[in-house]
Amino acid sequence: MSGSDASGYDSMRNLRWSPAEKAIARKAFDLALHREFKAVIDDARKRMAKVERVSALWELEQYLTERRKEIDLTYDYRYSVLPVVFGSLISEGRLSERELRGLGEDKLRYVREYAKS
Amino acid sequence: MSGSDASGYDSMRNLRWSPAEKAIARKAFDLALHREFKAVIDDARKRMAKVERVSALWELEQYLTERRKEIDLTYDYRYSVLPVVFGSLISEGRLSERELRGLGEDKLRYVREYAKS
Repeated sequence: MSGSDASGYDSMRNLRWSPAEKAIARKAFDLALHREFKAVIDDARKRMAKVERVSALWELEQYLTERRKEIDLTYDYRYSVLPVVFGSLISEGRLSERELRGLGEDKLRYVREYAKS
Repeated sequence: MSGSDASGYDSMRNLRWSPAEKAIARKAFDLALHREFKAVIDDARKRMAKVERVSALWELEQYLTERRKEIDLTYDYRYSVLPVVFGSLISEGRLSERELRGLGEDKLRYVREYAKS
């Protein structure tokens, strides 16, 4: 099959995303990001509620810095890496495969592969 | 007067601190630091209570980083700089001159000078 690599997969970078698939991807991405933000806000509130000493406040600062960097790194909307991103979001419980319904099987098999790893 | 500089002041670095003065200085320093910590915790709680969007959470992170660095920089317990530290704490309202009662006039005149600047 032309455009396939040795393993029979189209190269992830060469996948073609239809406008409908792009809309589905954007919606799922934003949904997961929204959940991520909600989770970090909830977590920060709980940690703040327990702060009695300043050392716990600096731990909260450290936690926020790490979470911000982690989120920046994870949520990468380039189509060339999006199946990896979705795979990792599924494995972390931020997204379900159901929410990617409508994406072509050529994308979903990458998603499933990365969700397992 | 031997040991005085041209202005009639003993050099701040050459001031001699008696054990009693050191005890007073330590107590005042710790008191101000305790107030500083209390203020930053109170402030962080108020900011956290208003967080609805993640952008406000990253602003809180930024605020904590700045406050931590500021506190690290301000609270310097070397005797050679302590009158400057006390002066600035007085001018910021973290300490009153009354709480330095017992320090020699040779230290207090530096403290007052820096409290004004």
